[in-house]
Amino acid sequence: MSIKHAETDHPIHELATRRWSPYVFADRPVAREDLTALFEAARWAASSFNEQPWSYLVATREEPEEYERLLSCLVEPNQAWAKAAPVLALGVVTHRFKRNDKPNRVATHDLGLAAGNLLLEATARELLVHQMAGILPDRARELYSIPSGSEAWTGLAIGHAGDPESADGGLGDRDRAPRTRKPLREFVFSGRWGQAAGL
Amino acid sequence: MSIKHAETDHPIHELATRRWSPYVFADRPVAREDLTALFEAARWAASSFNEQPWSYLVATREEPEEYERLLSCLVEPNQAWAKAAPVLALGVVTHRFKRNDKPNRVATHDLGLAAGNLLLEATARELLVHQMAGILPDRARELYSIPSGSEAWTGLAIGHAGDPESADGGLGDRDRAPRTRKPLREFVFSGRWGQAAGL
Repeated sequence: MSIKHAETDHPIHELATRRWSPYVFADRPVAREDLTALFEAARWAASSFNEQPWSYLVATREEPEEYERLLSCLVEPNQAWAKAAPVLALGVVTHRFKRNDKPNRVATHDLGLAAGNLLLEATARELLVHQMAGILPDRARELYSIPSGSEAWTGLAIGHAGDPESADGGLGDRDRAPRTRKPLREFVFSGRWGQAAGL
Repeated sequence: MSIKHAETDHPIHELATRRWSPYVFADRPVAREDLTALFEAARWAASSFNEQPWSYLVATREEPEEYERLLSCLVEPNQAWAKAAPVLALGVVTHRFKRNDKPNRVATHDLGLAAGNLLLEATARELLVHQMAGILPDRARELYSIPSGSEAWTGLAIGHAGDPESADGGLGDRDRAPRTRKPLREFVFSGRWGQAAGL
């Protein structure tokens, strides 16, 4: 597996440094047991009032028709690279609380928490996940009969890292580029907005 | 540390099973180094176009005035238990992309991804985090001069687990209750909405 470690300013757990989002996937299936574990991890995420406002639609390359259907719910620029991943999924959010039908302001945030757990488990199993905002929610609703209170929110391409050298176009370059982030002083504040917390 | 393991249906990484959200915190500070690592981990989360639409406002009990200010941004039922945590924070989301000022549909989702990384690091360091949707975003905007494009979205109480026996009212009972989740077949689908993926 090709690894793109984060160059951190402070030491953190290796599961956080090893996670990255590849454009190039290896032609190698994901074991059923591993796939199950990813969603089991998502299952145990925190959520407001334990609402668990997340659902997933999943397709593997072993079922070509289902795979094509899920692929067609991604925007074309994402289809171009995601079609190499052995597993595709859509993350679906439910916007209202079941118990009282009130809007759940943190529903998409909590879908992100579930994804965070899924990513942790994937990294532990030497799998990589590339999430996408570029999906076609209306098409997904039509193809999968997603009910009106829920909505496809993210796409996930899941698999093993491929060889950047084997990739067409600029995809390999993207996978070779170093990972970059804003420094802590630009987003962790104390006292007032913009004042670095000095961590 | 009191531990509330998830009783999983399938084996997953212990960092996902050990995470839980306590109501009772121990009277013990969080080391500066640990606190720094939590936000360093959040820093390396994935985000759409690497926008990193998350920021944090943080206060520790070592600065009582700052701590009280942050505490006052939580709804009262949350203040009642969160005031025992040695560290409080607000998770702030920025709703539009910096590069083109267009709405970022996944901004709060990506704040959730950052929180997922923060939780991973916390669990690895035997810290616990209880996140809250119940905060007062307008009060936070006023007290911290949060600019109009950004918005306080979540609260975080951070610390070590306390002794449930020591807690007033029903808080200890909540910390003793087992963790529960929907089974996989109720939220991981294949082919169409509601059809279990059979993982």
